[in-house]
Amino acid sequence: MAINVIHYRQGGEALWGVARAGSITPIPGSYATTRDFLREGAAEARAVAARLPVGEALSPRSVELLCPITRNQQFICQGINYRSHMRESGLDPERASFNMIFRKASSCLAPADTDIVRPAHVRLLDYEVEIGLVVGRDLDGPVAVTEENLHHYVAALVLVNDVSARDVQLLQTQFYKGKSYRTFGPVGPYLTLVDAADLARFASLRLSLRVNDEIRQDSLAEDMIFTPAPTLTELSALQDLSTGDLIATGTPGGCALRAPGGLALLVGKLLPDHVKWANFVKMNAGNPRFLRPGDRVKAAIRTDDGAIDLGVQENTVVAPREERLTSAAA
Amino acid sequence: MAINVIHYRQGGEALWGVARAGSITPIPGSYATTRDFLREGAAEARAVAARLPVGEALSPRSVELLCPITRNQQFICQGINYRSHMRESGLDPERASFNMIFRKASSCLAPADTDIVRPAHVRLLDYEVEIGLVVGRDLDGPVAVTEENLHHYVAALVLVNDVSARDVQLLQTQFYKGKSYRTFGPVGPYLTLVDAADLARFASLRLSLRVNDEIRQDSLAEDMIFTPAPTLTELSALQDLSTGDLIATGTPGGCALRAPGGLALLVGKLLPDHVKWANFVKMNAGNPRFLRPGDRVKAAIRTDDGAIDLGVQENTVVAPREERLTSAAA
Repeated sequence: MAINVIHYRQGGEALWGVARAGSITPIPGSYATTRDFLREGAAEARAVAARLPVGEALSPRSVELLCPITRNQQFICQGINYRSHMRESGLDPERASFNMIFRKASSCLAPADTDIVRPAHVRLLDYEVEIGLVVGRDLDGPVAVTEENLHHYVAALVLVNDVSARDVQLLQTQFYKGKSYRTFGPVGPYLTLVDAADLARFASLRLSLRVNDEIRQDSLAEDMIFTPAPTLTELSALQDLSTGDLIATGTPGGCALRAPGGLALLVGKLLPDHVKWANFVKMNAGNPRFLRPGDRVKAAIRTDDGAIDLGVQENTVVAPREERLTSAAA
Repeated sequence: MAINVIHYRQGGEALWGVARAGSITPIPGSYATTRDFLREGAAEARAVAARLPVGEALSPRSVELLCPITRNQQFICQGINYRSHMRESGLDPERASFNMIFRKASSCLAPADTDIVRPAHVRLLDYEVEIGLVVGRDLDGPVAVTEENLHHYVAALVLVNDVSARDVQLLQTQFYKGKSYRTFGPVGPYLTLVDAADLARFASLRLSLRVNDEIRQDSLAEDMIFTPAPTLTELSALQDLSTGDLIATGTPGGCALRAPGGLALLVGKLLPDHVKWANFVKMNAGNPRFLRPGDRVKAAIRTDDGAIDLGVQENTVVAPREERLTSAAA
């Protein structure tokens, strides 16, 4: 059964607790990293959850939310991994011949209620609600991950917003920079510990995202192209993974990003690359769907019956501190 | 004055020593990571170097070489950052309008004498000799790095081979996967501690690489486009950096990769992307410059007067273990 764990700060201390029915029950022990928590504290969490309600429970309002993935962990991402997102990008899902992998800097990992800072030079700020897999084992060589043994390799799921500066990401071709600015990786609120039965329902998870209460994304994970088992099999043959590392599995359709006629059409034109991308930014400059300071983003992931519920993330988009100070003084 | 430090294993222990005149003098203390060494051991290293020759010196042959950058550190890379490499890729260096940043998985960090394993599905295996900057300070916000204060932010330089599977890297558009396979990041042999005067000579470093004694790359760092100071300024505004993190600064011309008429010409053709790249791989399949099992790669970086010398890296390309066993049995 899925257990929602919350990472929080209280009295200057970073703690972990079981979140249920609107309250937090502290988990005994001290765990500095997500890896430490999963290796040493997850069993404690299950024991606490089995005894609930017990002892003193805290109100979530009385604590400071922390990111459930600590910054020592790798932040690995899959790109264009939903059929609906491929189609809206002007790509053909039947042509998805490889699993696109890239990284975000771990310093963009942020609590679920973080303000998302739009850097001063960024105009095309976009959102991407994603299911994050939290690795359950240290791996230093290839393993064959299947639907049957998946629960040995995935310890938890989390809600991720893979915030993206499209004008940096696409113009510079490598996604790293445009997706790594500080606050571009809100994760949580929960670290949802899962077992084999929970993972068997993975395709039934519904991802949704609203901007200022307007629904933008709303899809089931069944639309995913490269699912967790083959992705972990391939990653393990490529690189080492540590318990607690985060793999964001891509976003469904509904992002702000749009290229009239599709990105592929634009890219296919016989123009030098810098002209193409300058055109692309111009085309999108008037697109009101991109995020601006003041916008409120609300994302959620759950099965429709609520049996697995990764929680709700609410963030406000803000200008960088210098801009805020300048406009306050004006 | 530049001091060459070596990270090695002896008697089961990971140690650090000063390398000079063909011998190693151990540095007192135990430092688990490159960050720990730079924060706590670098002063010890300078003290040992000032007293040399002293005490018992080891022969490099008696120890096992370790990677001078430990795997807790970030492995950040700059792409197409030399004018000569841009030209050979069919790109115009005058159009270099941004500093391309991507990541390699830290699990590909390997000792300078590692065998480079060519994965079974890779045919276009390439080499890239690069100068690695080793970060000298923990940074969690933007800093203005200049030629004058560069030595506060760069503690050391290392030789890096940014080994690349071109058929994965270019077909899949994001560089991460094609550059992250285990053993694709030999670093060292030395961690070369540098001061302000050494860094003032950065442009005079000569990078060279030979395959089976044939010279392939031979360029001065003065051909670099985005130099360390602006690169660190930009990175610090993007993400956190830790002492000991590695930034590989790009490779000069001479890689195996060649597209007749230039990559840009190929990419400019009105063909669907997957057809373009299939053509690219076909065009290059007969290119004998790509690395094959048995090839010996030898890379070096030094000023022509030898005052700064990052050492020599020698690697043999090998097939994966399974292939080697199969062919031995045949």
